[in-house]
Amino acid sequence: MPASNPAFAPTHQPKPLTFDPTKLPGLSEKLLRSHWENNYGGSVKALNTIKQKLAQALADKDLPPFVYNDLKREHLMRTGSVVLHELYFENLGGDGKADAEMRKQIGVAFGDFNTWETEFRRMAAGLGGGSGWVLLGYNRHTRQVENYWLADHLHGPADTTPLLVMDMYEHSYQLDYGAAAAKYIDAFFQNIRWEIVAARLARMA
Amino acid sequence: MPASNPAFAPTHQPKPLTFDPTKLPGLSEKLLRSHWENNYGGSVKALNTIKQKLAQALADKDLPPFVYNDLKREHLMRTGSVVLHELYFENLGGDGKADAEMRKQIGVAFGDFNTWETEFRRMAAGLGGGSGWVLLGYNRHTRQVENYWLADHLHGPADTTPLLVMDMYEHSYQLDYGAAAAKYIDAFFQNIRWEIVAARLARMA
Amino acid sequence: MPASNPAFAPTHQPKPLTFDPTKLPGLSEKLLRSHWENNYGGSVKALNTIKQKLAQALADKDLPPFVYNDLKREHLMRTGSVVLHELYFENLGGDGKADAEMRKQIGVAFGDFNTWETEFRRMAAGLGGGSGWVLLGYNRHTRQVENYWLADHLHGPADTTPLLVMDMYEHSYQLDYGAAAAKYIDAFFQNIRWEIVAARLARMA
Amino acid sequence: MPASNPAFAPTHQPKPLTFDPTKLPGLSEKLLRSHWENNYGGSVKALNTIKQKLAQALADKDLPPFVYNDLKREHLMRTGSVVLHELYFENLGGDGKADAEMRKQIGVAFGDFNTWETEFRRMAAGLGGGSGWVLLGYNRHTRQVENYWLADHLHGPADTTPLLVMDMYEHSYQLDYGAAAAKYIDAFFQNIRWEIVAARLARMA
Repeated sequence: MPASNPAFAPTHQPKPLTFDPTKLPGLSEKLLRSHWENNYGGSVKALNTIKQKLAQALADKDLPPFVYNDLKREHLMRTGSVVLHELYFENLGGDGKADAEMRKQIGVAFGDFNTWETEFRRMAAGLGGGSGWVLLGYNRHTRQVENYWLADHLHGPADTTPLLVMDMYEHSYQLDYGAAAAKYIDAFFQNIRWEIVAARLARMA
Repeated sequence: MPASNPAFAPTHQPKPLTFDPTKLPGLSEKLLRSHWENNYGGSVKALNTIKQKLAQALADKDLPPFVYNDLKREHLMRTGSVVLHELYFENLGGDGKADAEMRKQIGVAFGDFNTWETEFRRMAAGLGGGSGWVLLGYNRHTRQVENYWLADHLHGPADTTPLLVMDMYEHSYQLDYGAAAAKYIDAFFQNIRWEIVAARLARMA
Repeated sequence: MPASNPAFAPTHQPKPLTFDPTKLPGLSEKLLRSHWENNYGGSVKALNTIKQKLAQALADKDLPPFVYNDLKREHLMRTGSVVLHELYFENLGGDGKADAEMRKQIGVAFGDFNTWETEFRRMAAGLGGGSGWVLLGYNRHTRQVENYWLADHLHGPADTTPLLVMDMYEHSYQLDYGAAAAKYIDAFFQNIRWEIVAARLARMA
Repeated sequence: MPASNPAFAPTHQPKPLTFDPTKLPGLSEKLLRSHWENNYGGSVKALNTIKQKLAQALADKDLPPFVYNDLKREHLMRTGSVVLHELYFENLGGDGKADAEMRKQIGVAFGDFNTWETEFRRMAAGLGGGSGWVLLGYNRHTRQVENYWLADHLHGPADTTPLLVMDMYEHSYQLDYGAAAAKYIDAFFQNIRWEIVAARLARMA
């Protein structure tokens, strides 16, 4: 393999939080810091590790392809964890209030804004006690705005840009709420930074 | 739910093949037509069905959220199957020759073009006898061009636009090659329509 | 690690077919031999390979646990493939006729025999075009006889002994039937060796 | 469907804890009660719900098989959660000390007892921050005692009786330890009820 190889370069760096974690109503600093440092930060490190393992493995011509793919699965999983966590933290820190333009745009996609919120909250509730993500996404291929259910970091809708990302792994709420996922769902909605959702959607125009 | 609801509208239509299925070296018309009609076409129908089920289920306030999510999982799976199949067929029908500009761009991402091809082929080989997809994708979030391993239609890298899509479900080759996945991999490479890959990449610029 | 270590020993051997593959109505010799040799045989080899990799990996104290688990996932997958394939081939080669005692026992579990068959066939139909297994199993923990849906070799009901195993990976039928999974389902039922199902159930008494 | 149908009967009842949850070193009463009531108890309820949904769905001849299977997936998942949780709680409440006979038996399977413990602990560490189970199991088909990695309640080794079950979902430890999974692993080992493991193994003889 050539010396310069960006696809296999272990150069991922954790992105700092874009909000003050002492100020989010309903989400404690302890929870947010642990989530950022251990779960997100751990995945950044793991992604760098796996890229080094992949570079070594690719150079080993005797390694069976199915063993190589075990590493590519980890690569997909850690990439998912890193990207989704970055989008998640980035869409927190707001006042939770979607403005009229945002409500209109989501309304166009879902019939009305409440239909969207009802589905998104129901999907989140259904993931309580387990793990996964809920995504509002813009599917670039079908040109639709939809909600997607993800069982883990490996899942994801094809050719889709996430607009609003909600972590439903238990590390997102157990420290503050134990098994009471419903309280976390309320807290999440209270802290959505809708400006970011709008900005992500605007880029799709 | 309001009458007009695009996110739940069962209006997906199969897209016709963009090549003449009698003309692809190494991939028979029978295989290609069966793949398009039964596997891709079946998923288009299933996606429409699942959207109708979702609209009914959302209106049923007594349905437990975890049962609702069983349908959302199917929604993710069928969306994945429809989108990935459309991208797959679209990137077939070419002469398999990447031009100098394409080789250069992939070379920038992977160190050199051969490194990319070695990894992509190895991942495909590792999926032989099972099911899944191999993707060359542009990750819009990390701004990297990478290969991704997908175990099934539910898997996918977050915020990524597929550039080259390869179906490794057994319906992609069993009719022509039985278990000899290696022959299918060669045939796939011979038929890549690199112009489409270039066009998809150009849109990311 | 000590010299003798059965859990990591790469000593799996393929078990020969217990029927004459030229004699099964609706399942060709070519299909059965390819399935046995490539898909089952391939997994036996892969399982041995992965056990050697695990022994090496366990001795490497610097290997991150999550990378070790990538191999343990493969271990689970190949173990599933080997065991389920052996049970599948073993329950083929019969005349497809459940005797009165068998029908009675399944009837006790499902209300009546037809209810069982209706569910089992429907589950098989639902897996057409994808991959997975359908299992009639005895759950030793709940003491129930039930049908189970498995998406792949990794899936499986906890503490359950398979009684009747049906492969729904496309390599089970594409060579003979293409995408026409329904024809394979009929052929499978025609070839069930119910004596084996009865013997497996008798061991649970 | 006939009136009496055990396979679809919503008659699962939660099993009480077999230990005093105020007495386990390193695992708080609050954590254990929440785990038992919300995660295990929730799955018992969900399993009953899904059996009622399945009975209705089976009677609906127009329901597409792939939608039926969405419910069968949930059936597999909830069965896994119920059975594995019952086995998990049952193998807690001991003094964590494997006696000489137990150590000998595991030693026969793994070369020595320490090799087993090293692998089991490493697998647990690798699941930290995510979700899943670690199983020591007796594979009835291959007649081997092995450790298995399970990504979620749906996973499971074919034809295997669990001997020692460890929950690695975050609800098993976040309330007490946050992201410090390593501390939970130590606490788990301190509380293993080896008598139960021995009894499960004895039944396999």
